[in-house]
Amino acid sequence: MKEFELIKRYFTDQVVKRKEVTLGIGDDCALISPPQNQEIAITTDTLVSGVHFPQNTPPRAIGHKAVAVNLSDLAAMGAEPSWISIAITLPKIDETWVNEFCQGVFELCEYFNVQLIGGDTTQGPLSITVTAQGLCPEGTALKRSGATPGQWIYVTGEIGDAALALKHINNEVLVEPAFRESVIERLDYPKPRVLAGQTIRLYASAAIDISDGLIADLTHICLHSQVGANIVLDNLPLSKGMIATMGDHAAELALNGGDDYELLFVVDEANKVGMETALSQLGIAFSCIGQTNNSNKITTTLNDQAVNINTAGFEHFSE
Amino acid sequence: MKEFELIKRYFTDQVVKRKEVTLGIGDDCALISPPQNQEIAITTDTLVSGVHFPQNTPPRAIGHKAVAVNLSDLAAMGAEPSWISIAITLPKIDETWVNEFCQGVFELCEYFNVQLIGGDTTQGPLSITVTAQGLCPEGTALKRSGATPGQWIYVTGEIGDAALALKHINNEVLVEPAFRESVIERLDYPKPRVLAGQTIRLYASAAIDISDGLIADLTHICLHSQVGANIVLDNLPLSKGMIATMGDHAAELALNGGDDYELLFVVDEANKVGMETALSQLGIAFSCIGQTNNSNKITTTLNDQAVNINTAGFEHFSE
Repeated sequence: MKEFELIKRYFTDQVVKRKEVTLGIGDDCALISPPQNQEIAITTDTLVSGVHFPQNTPPRAIGHKAVAVNLSDLAAMGAEPSWISIAITLPKIDETWVNEFCQGVFELCEYFNVQLIGGDTTQGPLSITVTAQGLCPEGTALKRSGATPGQWIYVTGEIGDAALALKHINNEVLVEPAFRESVIERLDYPKPRVLAGQTIRLYASAAIDISDGLIADLTHICLHSQVGANIVLDNLPLSKGMIATMGDHAAELALNGGDDYELLFVVDEANKVGMETALSQLGIAFSCIGQTNNSNKITTTLNDQAVNINTAGFEHFSE
Repeated sequence: MKEFELIKRYFTDQVVKRKEVTLGIGDDCALISPPQNQEIAITTDTLVSGVHFPQNTPPRAIGHKAVAVNLSDLAAMGAEPSWISIAITLPKIDETWVNEFCQGVFELCEYFNVQLIGGDTTQGPLSITVTAQGLCPEGTALKRSGATPGQWIYVTGEIGDAALALKHINNEVLVEPAFRESVIERLDYPKPRVLAGQTIRLYASAAIDISDGLIADLTHICLHSQVGANIVLDNLPLSKGMIATMGDHAAELALNGGDDYELLFVVDEANKVGMETALSQLGIAFSCIGQTNNSNKITTTLNDQAVNINTAGFEHFSE
């Protein structure tokens, strides 16, 4: 099969057509006519087989995740996901594989009204790079640099389940059957917090998505905003499966594990009630897990007592 | 070394700062405030080691080429290159390698006033995906679909040298020392025809960059525009090195070889003189190599006689 036919067959037909896209897939470039008074948020993330997902991950999950991790970056800025490009490197063309991969991609695109505008298909070791773009009213995007001391630190949802799933897959722990499906779903099919991002944009001072681990990503906010932070471990939102499996080590895994794709954000006292009301009305789960401060470090407390916890974070090149 | 430090050290410092970029590298997304009445052209291309460049290619050439092939797509639309993201997958961090790679990237960015706005660094088999974006006055971008029968077909520069260099590297032919450096330069350091693209935008009906081979890319124009074409082999712009090395097979290699990154474009009789004058004044080499027609095929002539030439084109998956 010819490369061009493959691309044409699987990537050209799609449901979502956005009005800003004046030329879609099939030429040297796509063309966008950007709406006025909006900024464009742009992000790129690569997933490599064996590094960012286990080699036996279902192709539908790989397609989902490749898009989801990028939409999560858009969510962290409070942007509306709009269009994506996909560059995929495949060892060989396996039609079933490509078909299922595309299912994962397009399910998410249709759900969030995102148009695929281009891409590249090449031969080589399996990896996927997505570039995603979103729209945000001018000057309103959430940055990592907006936090000040004394603000409240929040996260959406529950954290650590994706890391727990990875430990289970690698035979480091055994997750009981009752919880297994739900934690593996968190690893394979992360849900980008797009609605939450657009909601907190009106209230939060800074935000980031938790991809490298809660502490690692909070560190980015602290460094960019020049604040310290204390995390109240009592308030960490942990799943039943996490507590049942990890016991006393649950908090440690939740703080260090990556791949959560929840949002971590910082809110001023004055915006606390408004934001909590807005998120509650939309049915979005959130927890207040600590506060920023004047120090230059991240500390943790349990029952109001300082505790030390191993917080290594996740790095690709950790020589 | 930590991944984040690597990214910070090599990719954050750069000379080019464009006014549309309201937030550069370092957050979840970059932010662009797009100028009014301009469309944004977007393209993505991946280079895989051993597929798109020989494994022993100098890192500076890899950096150059990864950016150049994308700027070439922008050139084919007549767009002004504006900002790029780079996703790079590396087997390991080798500082010398990264330093030289960045040299290749930034030389081209500075020359064309392109700002690097983001990227991703991951561990795995060497490959680079660049997403490039450019600006074009609304409604003026050149597409593949604009050709009509009876128009003139042009190419910029000389074609086939990159394919010749690859044959030399693979020991399939021997390029004489006198020509060797210049043909290998064509393979390793392709020059995207950005100025030519912006110039022909005012005159041409359709354009494409020659990445897969002249015939393969002309085929795209023919299919999109529903025209046929005849190529006059006497007029193919071939280098001295090409003629000296390939003799009677020079035209065949020039038509089928990929990686030229010259522009192929189609111009109406009424715009012929204006366009030739504009390109000549800018010192851009070009050749008129044939004409579109009403047929549904691509033919070739030599000395006004029809000739058959093997025109397979280049496909990644040619099972």
